[in-house]
Amino acid sequence: MIYPDSFSHVTRTMKSSLIRELVASTKNIPGLISFAGGFPSPATFPKRQLAEIFKDVAAQEGADVLQYGASEGDALLKKELMKWEGYDLSPDEMVTTVGATNALYYYGRALIDPGDAILCEAPSFLGSLVAFDALGADVQSVPLDCDGIVMEVLEARVKSLRSHGKKIKFLYVIPDFQNPGGITYSLDRRRELISYCSGNEIPIVEDNPYSRLRFSGTPVPTLYRLAREEFEGSAIVTEIVSFSKILGPGMRVAFAKGDKELIGKMVSWQQKINITPDCVAQRVVARFLEKGLMDPHIASICDFYRPYLQKMLDELEKNMPQSVAWNKPEGGIFLWLTLPENVNADELFVQAGQNKVSFIPGSKFYPEGQERFNTLRLNFTYSTFEQIEEGIKRLAALLK
Amino acid sequence: MIYPDSFSHVTRTMKSSLIRELVASTKNIPGLISFAGGFPSPATFPKRQLAEIFKDVAAQEGADVLQYGASEGDALLKKELMKWEGYDLSPDEMVTTVGATNALYYYGRALIDPGDAILCEAPSFLGSLVAFDALGADVQSVPLDCDGIVMEVLEARVKSLRSHGKKIKFLYVIPDFQNPGGITYSLDRRRELISYCSGNEIPIVEDNPYSRLRFSGTPVPTLYRLAREEFEGSAIVTEIVSFSKILGPGMRVAFAKGDKELIGKMVSWQQKINITPDCVAQRVVARFLEKGLMDPHIASICDFYRPYLQKMLDELEKNMPQSVAWNKPEGGIFLWLTLPENVNADELFVQAGQNKVSFIPGSKFYPEGQERFNTLRLNFTYSTFEQIEEGIKRLAALLK
Repeated sequence: MIYPDSFSHVTRTMKSSLIRELVASTKNIPGLISFAGGFPSPATFPKRQLAEIFKDVAAQEGADVLQYGASEGDALLKKELMKWEGYDLSPDEMVTTVGATNALYYYGRALIDPGDAILCEAPSFLGSLVAFDALGADVQSVPLDCDGIVMEVLEARVKSLRSHGKKIKFLYVIPDFQNPGGITYSLDRRRELISYCSGNEIPIVEDNPYSRLRFSGTPVPTLYRLAREEFEGSAIVTEIVSFSKILGPGMRVAFAKGDKELIGKMVSWQQKINITPDCVAQRVVARFLEKGLMDPHIASICDFYRPYLQKMLDELEKNMPQSVAWNKPEGGIFLWLTLPENVNADELFVQAGQNKVSFIPGSKFYPEGQERFNTLRLNFTYSTFEQIEEGIKRLAALLK
Repeated sequence: MIYPDSFSHVTRTMKSSLIRELVASTKNIPGLISFAGGFPSPATFPKRQLAEIFKDVAAQEGADVLQYGASEGDALLKKELMKWEGYDLSPDEMVTTVGATNALYYYGRALIDPGDAILCEAPSFLGSLVAFDALGADVQSVPLDCDGIVMEVLEARVKSLRSHGKKIKFLYVIPDFQNPGGITYSLDRRRELISYCSGNEIPIVEDNPYSRLRFSGTPVPTLYRLAREEFEGSAIVTEIVSFSKILGPGMRVAFAKGDKELIGKMVSWQQKINITPDCVAQRVVARFLEKGLMDPHIASICDFYRPYLQKMLDELEKNMPQSVAWNKPEGGIFLWLTLPENVNADELFVQAGQNKVSFIPGSKFYPEGQERFNTLRLNFTYSTFEQIEEGIKRLAALLK
């Protein structure tokens, strides 16, 4: 037993993301169909290609990649990333990290003093919000409509917070195939947002794990790209790109691009917290990119997921009562359901477990005290067609 | 440019480890012989064995290890680690991390509130101290003698801190082939330390990157083992073992063993900061252990390094003036030199650079304001025999 009173205040009081607990709570129900997690399908992992590259990298570049690497990230990987994304950045405008969560933690650590306000979407990814909360942030959520964050509410919230003497450190957004809402910001809303945040000195952190998972429709430029190209090279946006959904989350590789000075601070935190991400994994991703394997691989993932999204949309259409609504995203891994106002998805979750189907109640995607209860999130990338058919039927039966 | 005033207070004021800056400052001097870094020799990396295992793990276990892993660490790796070390622990007494620095960060985050005191050795590894400092700790150092931390000073310091109302959160020690001092704690001192800390409710974190690098002499049990075996299963010690010096630091794999409740808190921080360490790397280490490759590999590293240590000791003996003293460790990767009281190793460092030889001045291994200046650290695992011969000659010439 560690001594009473030993743990730090934040450790004793910090929140958990609950999603993990919810997924765990249904883990041992035999025959459960789960749309709860946010896992990519293992069928999309390029195992054979990666196996060959892992072998070559360890054998031929082992003296380099098994050694301590730079806290700024593998220079070769950064070069390949810029080529892949079509940027001509200075290496100090980019840092590689142990997944996107890690990049968000460095970003938050670099900016948040306890008590500072940060802004996020409502709903948003609770995993990030609890990490910001653990850094002492006062997390304030602003609702989404189908084009993105609602500008009028954002502006009013900023005014109100500032009139109360609050510092607003940044806005956290997921503009493409948002988690959990599934929406994608329109080009106009993106421009409005950058213009407003530039004018009001609010840095934006753009979490981008999903934009490459587009199964149809036309890609919209990221906030980072728009800010650089249309706002006089503004460095207001820091974009965090994860490989978790397009290569494999187990490799823990992500990268952030942004203002030089800010990236430098994130590197300083990386030095203290992890020294460097796994250097073997970084180099493997570099070689995967260099061989031109990434884009065809992503195309094949999109081909793989497209029918699963369609299947879930079809089954919802076929089975759900009229009172239930959902979005129709062109990619990503989630759907977002809106239930009648009087239905509480937290209560539904318990009944659903008894009926062997699972999801994440929408309330879990809001900061504490800012919840909405008549929504839920469904994942479509980790189930078979049969599971989707049967699971949506079970859920619809409960809602009827 | 990020907005003025955006960075958090700690980010604006935090210290850097300086070692990195010192190593970087001499990087472009042609012909420089450097004993400054703490790098293992790339000749010791088991590249071919790892290449095969990387390939097999990615190809055959890719569906598992490329997926999200548990924040507690890979269950299979933890099982192999317990077998390797000869422990029968519960899985919740161990967590795997992104290298030892990462484990120390979680440990510090779990325990330190700003203003709390923590205790460390003088000298100690500054990389860890600046990370604790960035968590708001008041870092207090206690001198070493050739058997370990000086108990009388430790006891007096604890009394004095507590009489001033300070909470002491833990003691940070490196009992085997200490960095930078090179000393190894005697068995008696280990027992005294555990007994004292148990009686006075001071948790100990034992940083263990070097104990397996023993080239001669008899191993001494770790504090963790002694506490369990001789102090009624006491969980006062958390031991952090790194694979950086015995497999390859680029893989970023380490693990911590300790009190269940404390390990649980470290896992909570891992979930917020990294989610999980690289799952491919974890499984590769598991298979490396399972195949029985670890112990013969470590034996071969010891055989490799032994003559380099001997060579450096011989050259010191041959060249150094009488006024210079050094320890004679039975392993590890560092030697520690004590110069005459009036010699300042920080000044010597500048002259040495001009004479194309480098080291780390001892002052860099003390908390701010607690420095000693007539010491320096030499690394013997990253130079050729010729470089050791020539480099020590250059250094001795300066000291004469």
